[in-house]
This record gives sequence, C-alpha cells and structure tokens, in this order.
Amino acid sequence: MPVSKNTIKYIQSLRQKKFRQKYDKFVVEGDKMVRELLEHRSEWVETLFALPNWMEHLPPQQWPPDLQALTVSENELSRLSLLKTPNQVLALVRQPRYALRAADLTGGLSLYLDDLQDPGNMGTLLRLADWFGISTVICSPNCVEVFNPKVIQASMGAFLRVSTIVADFEAVRNTAPGLTIFGADMEGENVFQADLPQTGVLVIGNEGAGITPAVMEQVTHRVSIPRGKGGGAESLNAAVAAGIIIGVLLN
Amino acid sequence: MPVSKNTIKYIQSLRQKKFRQKYDKFVVEGDKMVRELLEHRSEWVETLFALPNWMEHLPPQQWPPDLQALTVSENELSRLSLLKTPNQVLALVRQPRYALRAADLTGGLSLYLDDLQDPGNMGTLLRLADWFGISTVICSPNCVEVFNPKVIQASMGAFLRVSTIVADFEAVRNTAPGLTIFGADMEGENVFQADLPQTGVLVIGNEGAGITPAVMEQVTHRVSIPRGKGGGAESLNAAVAAGIIIGVLLN
Repeated sequence: MPVSKNTIKYIQSLRQKKFRQKYDKFVVEGDKMVRELLEHRSEWVETLFALPNWMEHLPPQQWPPDLQALTVSENELSRLSLLKTPNQVLALVRQPRYALRAADLTGGLSLYLDDLQDPGNMGTLLRLADWFGISTVICSPNCVEVFNPKVIQASMGAFLRVSTIVADFEAVRNTAPGLTIFGADMEGENVFQADLPQTGVLVIGNEGAGITPAVMEQVTHRVSIPRGKGGGAESLNAAVAAGIIIGVLLN
Repeated sequence: MPVSKNTIKYIQSLRQKKFRQKYDKFVVEGDKMVRELLEHRSEWVETLFALPNWMEHLPPQQWPPDLQALTVSENELSRLSLLKTPNQVLALVRQPRYALRAADLTGGLSLYLDDLQDPGNMGTLLRLADWFGISTVICSPNCVEVFNPKVIQASMGAFLRVSTIVADFEAVRNTAPGLTIFGADMEGENVFQADLPQTGVLVIGNEGAGITPAVMEQVTHRVSIPRGKGGGAESLNAAVAAGIIIGVLLN
C-alpha cells in the first residue's frame, strides 16, 4: 500500500517543534538507532516505515500489539525522511513522559540544563549522562527540545535510557529541598582538588550566558576547571566542561 | 569601489577544501572572531571586507602594511559571506604553517588527532587545547581540515593560539623518539586512579573507528574512562573524552 500524501506531510511536519508538541510524537531514523529503539523501547513506537530488505532481516521479536510496520520504497522513504541520506528505516515514536521524583534526585547525580540552546550539545550531554549512569536530566523550559532530530541523532541512543524532564528550577528545589547543587563558576573551588559529595544536581549553563543568575543563587557548591598555564580560551564547550566535572565528581 | 564578481567568486570558492589548499587561504567571519584575529594575528590577514559602521568603530591599531581594508555594503557582504546570517565583517586570511619541532612535543602535553572527521569536534578540541594551554595539535592527513569554516567557528578563536600541524604518526615518532604516547582504550588503566606523566602526546581516535591499529601499537600508556554503574552508552563523544583525560592528566 503506498504511503499517503497526508502521512508524508504529517511525518515532515515533525521537523518542527510546534507539530512535535501538538501531536506528542517524534521521529527516530536509521538502522542502528531504530534497532536500539525496538530492543529497549518498542512500546514507544507507533509506526515503522522500512525498506523491504530491512523489514525481512529484522530479528523475530515480541511486538507491541499496536505497532504498525509498513514496507516502503526507497522513493517513499526519501520523501518521509528528515535526513539528507535516508538510512533504511524511520520510526514514528510517542514522546515518553517522566515525572520529577524526589528519589531520582536524592539517589545520585542528576543534571539540570539551564537554557541550553545547541542541539549537538544537548545530544552530547545526554550521551555523557548515559555513559556515567546518570538517569535523570532536567531541562529548563527554554532549552532546545530533546525530541529535536539533531538532539536525537547526537545522543547516539542515550534518549532511550536517560529520563528527560522539562521543569523549572523551582520545581527541582521543591521536589528535593536541601539538595546539593553544583554549578560551574570561574570563582569556584578547583574541582580536581575539592572533596565533594557524589549526590546532587549539576547545573549546566547556556552556551553564551552561562548559568542564569536566579539559578546561580541557589548553587551550594561552585566548582571550577582551572585554565592551564598559557591557556587562552575564554571558556570550555558546555558538554566538555560537564564531562570533566561529572567524571571527577563520580570517580 | 564595488566588490568585483571575481572577488565574490574567489571568496565563495574558499568554502571548498580544494580551493583553500590551492590558494593557501581561509575565511574568518564575524565581529568577535575578526577582532580577535586582528588583535593577535593581524599579520595573517590579507583583506578585510567590512560594513562602514564596523570599519569606523575599529580601535586604532598598527596595521601590517600589506593589509587591505575594503568597505562593503550589506548586500555585498551577504554575497561574500559563507554564513546564513553575515555578521558585519569577513577576513581573507593566509593559512599559517607550523613546523613539527621536538621541543614542542617533549616540553608538555600535545594532541594527535587520528582521522577525526567532524568539524564541530575538531573545533571543540582546539578550544579545549587552548583552555588547558596545550600549544601543539597534530592532525593526521585524513583529519577534517583545520581551516574548514565550521572548525574555525567551533574553535571560538583557538586557531589563533594553538599551532596545528598536519603530519602522520611516523613523523611525530621520528621527531621525538621515546615520547610518552597516551591513547584511550576501554582496556586501559583507569585515568582517575593512574599515576601518569604530564608530558607526551595524547592520541584522539576517529569518532566511529577509534584509534587506527598502527597508531594504537605505538601507544605506551592506555587509559580508560570507566563507564558508570548503570551506564548504557557505547562510547563518549571524542571531545568530551579528550577533555576528561586532559583535565585529569594536567591536574
């Protein structure tokens, strides 16, 4: 059965945040990522659009009863795809929803992304969280959206394992009063030398403006990554700085 | 004097590596980056193309005698610019050349980028090197080119301070025999616990394939960033991993 024009229009509309939010859906593309999606989170998948060859070589699996799988031609896939080079399969996926829970905040290290704007940075941060076993990432309401295709792509599948929650900092504070709050600040304690707790929330600031003043006021532990001798850069990339702080905190 | 069609064609051709290499030039754009360029490396600049307002507000400076400064209209700038949103000024710049010198390799930590492909990663790595005062970054011949506009943009000005050299690993070994060579490897020593020298060259592998086997054979110190409890990601982003290893080695 050919894919209808309306379906193509619908999938294409999910490039845009307003339609992702309207329909509560997003798109995952490509052989590797869709396989991981089906392995870990097949219950999120509404529809698979795949080339015949891909569909045939899919390992047998218990599918959720409401999952639709449609075989499409290369031409149809390229009309559905948001990528320059479509890669065999595209999944239409329901957006997962996670609640902000005190136990998730007090049980380990979590991240609060404070107006992070770059989709590549956001994806890299999710991947980093996934590597270090950080299970909760809270995004401020002005952050780039997690279900943006560039975030999904850069996360390398981390969005399947890390719970992302959109909330403002007040909600975090109210959910877990007394939580340790780490923030990077040039005036802070040298993270390589400080003796710091391994539990709390690490605030990652916006790429240009850093941590918003209202959130910075709430930070209980200011940490810095000292610039090296002869170093000239004004700052580190947000994901790199986060990687260093998280690595040192947890090791 | 209006900018000629040939000039526009010439500047536009510098989007492509083959023309950057043919002419030995590259382009730097935008108010902040061009100001930094003029401050630190005005001798590299061949021609400035700037809006009248930008030119008028430039602080007085001793210009190199052969630097040409041309006032252009907004329309001309947008025809010259490689950016979606041109930002006041564009500089045509001569590519700097640095030699591989033993003293630069043995005097501190340097980086060897082994077939790194992503321009954003390359720029972020240069920025990271700049932050930690690493003055030499060697790029394997198959790396993305340093003068790619996306690398320049992501480096946030680090290309002005960090010397980048294209060379194969044999050349590095021959220049500084006996050098300590660090490489990230899942089987390596935990970088957070190991007692490691602060001098040597850190090899950063390709985003997908990691360190090439021939280079891995030469690695004298294999280091790992242990995955956290419950961590699911297959790997860390190359620049994030480099940031963690460099930060820990130098602190």
